[in-house]
Amino acid sequence: RVNADRLWDMLMDMAKIGPGIAGGNNRQTLTDEDGEGRHLFKTWCEDAGLTVGVDKMGTMFATRPGTDPDALPVYVGSHLDTQPTGGKYDGVLGVLGALEVVRTMNDLGIKTRHPIVVTNWANEEGARFAPAMLASGVFAGVHSLDFAYGRKDPEGKTYGDELSRIGWLGEEEVGARKMHAYFEYHIEQGPILEAEEKTIGVVTHCQGLWWLEFTLTGREAHTGSTPMNLRVNAGLAMARIIEMVQGVAMENQPGAVGGVGQVFFSPNSRNVLPGKVVFTVDIRSPDKAKLDRMRARIEAEAPKITEALGVGCSIEAIGHFEPVTFDPTLVTAVRTAAEKLGYSHMNLISGAGHDACWAAKVAPATMVMCPCVGGLSHNEAEEISKEWASAGCDVLFHAVVETAGI
Amino acid sequence: RVNADRLWDMLMDMAKIGPGIAGGNNRQTLTDEDGEGRHLFKTWCEDAGLTVGVDKMGTMFATRPGTDPDALPVYVGSHLDTQPTGGKYDGVLGVLGALEVVRTMNDLGIKTRHPIVVTNWANEEGARFAPAMLASGVFAGVHSLDFAYGRKDPEGKTYGDELSRIGWLGEEEVGARKMHAYFEYHIEQGPILEAEEKTIGVVTHCQGLWWLEFTLTGREAHTGSTPMNLRVNAGLAMARIIEMVQGVAMENQPGAVGGVGQVFFSPNSRNVLPGKVVFTVDIRSPDKAKLDRMRARIEAEAPKITEALGVGCSIEAIGHFEPVTFDPTLVTAVRTAAEKLGYSHMNLISGAGHDACWAAKVAPATMVMCPCVGGLSHNEAEEISKEWASAGCDVLFHAVVETAGI
Ligand SMILES: NC(=O)NCCC(=O)O
Ligand SMILES: NC(=O)NCCC(=O)O
Repeated sequence: RVNADRLWDMLMDMAKIGPGIAGGNNRQTLTDEDGEGRHLFKTWCEDAGLTVGVDKMGTMFATRPGTDPDALPVYVGSHLDTQPTGGKYDGVLGVLGALEVVRTMNDLGIKTRHPIVVTNWANEEGARFAPAMLASGVFAGVHSLDFAYGRKDPEGKTYGDELSRIGWLGEEEVGARKMHAYFEYHIEQGPILEAEEKTIGVVTHCQGLWWLEFTLTGREAHTGSTPMNLRVNAGLAMARIIEMVQGVAMENQPGAVGGVGQVFFSPNSRNVLPGKVVFTVDIRSPDKAKLDRMRARIEAEAPKITEALGVGCSIEAIGHFEPVTFDPTLVTAVRTAAEKLGYSHMNLISGAGHDACWAAKVAPATMVMCPCVGGLSHNEAEEISKEWASAGCDVLFHAVVETAGI
Repeated sequence: RVNADRLWDMLMDMAKIGPGIAGGNNRQTLTDEDGEGRHLFKTWCEDAGLTVGVDKMGTMFATRPGTDPDALPVYVGSHLDTQPTGGKYDGVLGVLGALEVVRTMNDLGIKTRHPIVVTNWANEEGARFAPAMLASGVFAGVHSLDFAYGRKDPEGKTYGDELSRIGWLGEEEVGARKMHAYFEYHIEQGPILEAEEKTIGVVTHCQGLWWLEFTLTGREAHTGSTPMNLRVNAGLAMARIIEMVQGVAMENQPGAVGGVGQVFFSPNSRNVLPGKVVFTVDIRSPDKAKLDRMRARIEAEAPKITEALGVGCSIEAIGHFEPVTFDPTLVTAVRTAAEKLGYSHMNLISGAGHDACWAAKVAPATMVMCPCVGGLSHNEAEEISKEWASAGCDVLFHAVVETAGI
């Protein structure tokens, strides 16, 4: 079993960097705080005897050599970046859990045939730079490096510039590394494990996603002196589209979600009808056909809504991944580990996207999940127990050792 | 008649300060640009022989003495601050038009019995600091000075601090001045004069307003892993309230408007359901009973919407003025001037609020309006012709001279 206290202490120490406003964290991608978190993680890796490499996307790879010089490494990781009002565990548990796996191997003097590479993927959250899972996407060949470097935050700063600025632009070609397998440990971010009173989620699939960015063009006008019949009201059109997306998601129950998390009104002044409204619709389903049907439905309905109001509407897909089926052998390794350790477990479909989804394109991959209180994530109040954290890490340890071979 | 070219040149020179991004202006209250605009205006006033005083709200009063030492001044003015994406004429025409009236008096050697005070009210727009018409409201005793100083912009900077910072905190007690009459010249900001092909709006009334600031409390949660039935979706509640406000306004046609210009999602991340949504509803009507009924209706309906979604809802009235009836004698002076000059004219109810609404509480007051292209205002594309500008100024000149006495 892993060292539960040591894992917990690492989590709490990392949480000191980029503290939030309500007990969580704000350590967004390529901010100074992200840089600071990376330095702390690097120190810990080196203390554990690992060699740290960095690629041109800023992803960090900390290698523990294997006994077989020809064997490809087993990668184990997740991400250290957070949402603007993020929790202490989302992503972090998977990176520090992977490090704890290696530290436990060191304690026990375990040598594996395959090397182990503890991995911190850059820009998983997609909060500052869309899309999410950007570095793992480049690694898997889904996005080009140029595309990634050109991603802009809301202030117009680019990924490429910010990566250089914080000093984490590495030398390695992105995706040059080959993987024997990829494991990712993560909090569930949903309510199922807790409700079912299971300690371990054996993740068999991940649902797919579309991010549809809407740009609505109305006419900026005075809220007082512009009669109702002369308004070209982009804000009203947005309201109707939000309601329509809700309807589309509800019609597709079970197995679908849809909502809006980000909205920008322009000029965003109390007595000006907005001339421009930009917002992002997030729809997901584990069923590819359903997901694409939902997208088609939304793209067909939205123009009807906007045209009736005289509002212009353009829609750009700024994020997408298809539903993923994880590798059956690795999934079995996770389930077997949970059973051997006596932890209650169940199969799960991940509701959130993860770097494992892109890694699955280039290697056998899977995930381990532990519960989180109330299913709450992307919230500073995100919480887990030390017991949950270490139980999932125990399972990760056994599944990784099994896969890396002794 | 006034000097049309000189008025137009002043308008174009002022528009060089705080240029916008699309041909208009961004010279928001108490910004450096506002300070710069004030300096230019002060220079022009002094060149015209006026003495400039400033009160503790930053309102500027430029006095041309009268011949009767006991006669109270006739005030003529508007505001030089703009919306973030404002036009070149909204407010500015009224201040520079008043100055042109005085310059024309100088040219013609006209001496009036009552002094004339060209006035630049501070923070009329209410874009940076709510509520609108703040300085004239303090002047009229509607708000306390402490209340005004404590108003915050979106970055949390206060009116009081920013007024000192830009160096326009004056010595005069606010409201100490007594007025014989108050005139304000303004673009219509609505479509009626242009549609009716009239050059002059004789403003008999101004409609009343409520600004209702909604704070909706949902639960921040992951857009992917949070099932539809577990969402506490403040963004969806906002969408339904926007639609409800639209419905309330439509039911109250004619003679009512309602809409939303400002929205803040928090944390405003694409994959986070908002934990907090703050937005402002702007409702107006010339009929006080109807206006208050609309407010009551909205305040009754909104909690039904939010409760059904489990969302918390608090509503604060952050701006209000009652419908105003302008002074019949001054209204007649404006109409008579238009007739004498041979300009087509019609009665108007102002759709927007103006400093004249608060001045009307402490003195006889009225307004003169000229058309604007397409009724467009609070938009950088706001436009008027030089002929419209000078026609309204001619009417202002005659009505002011009539009222100030020769
Ligand atoms: N795990 C996680 O929150 N990933 C961010 C990408 C997504 O929105 O699913
Ligand atoms: N005239 C004008 O735009 N005033 C701002 C206050 C309002 O919203 O009516």
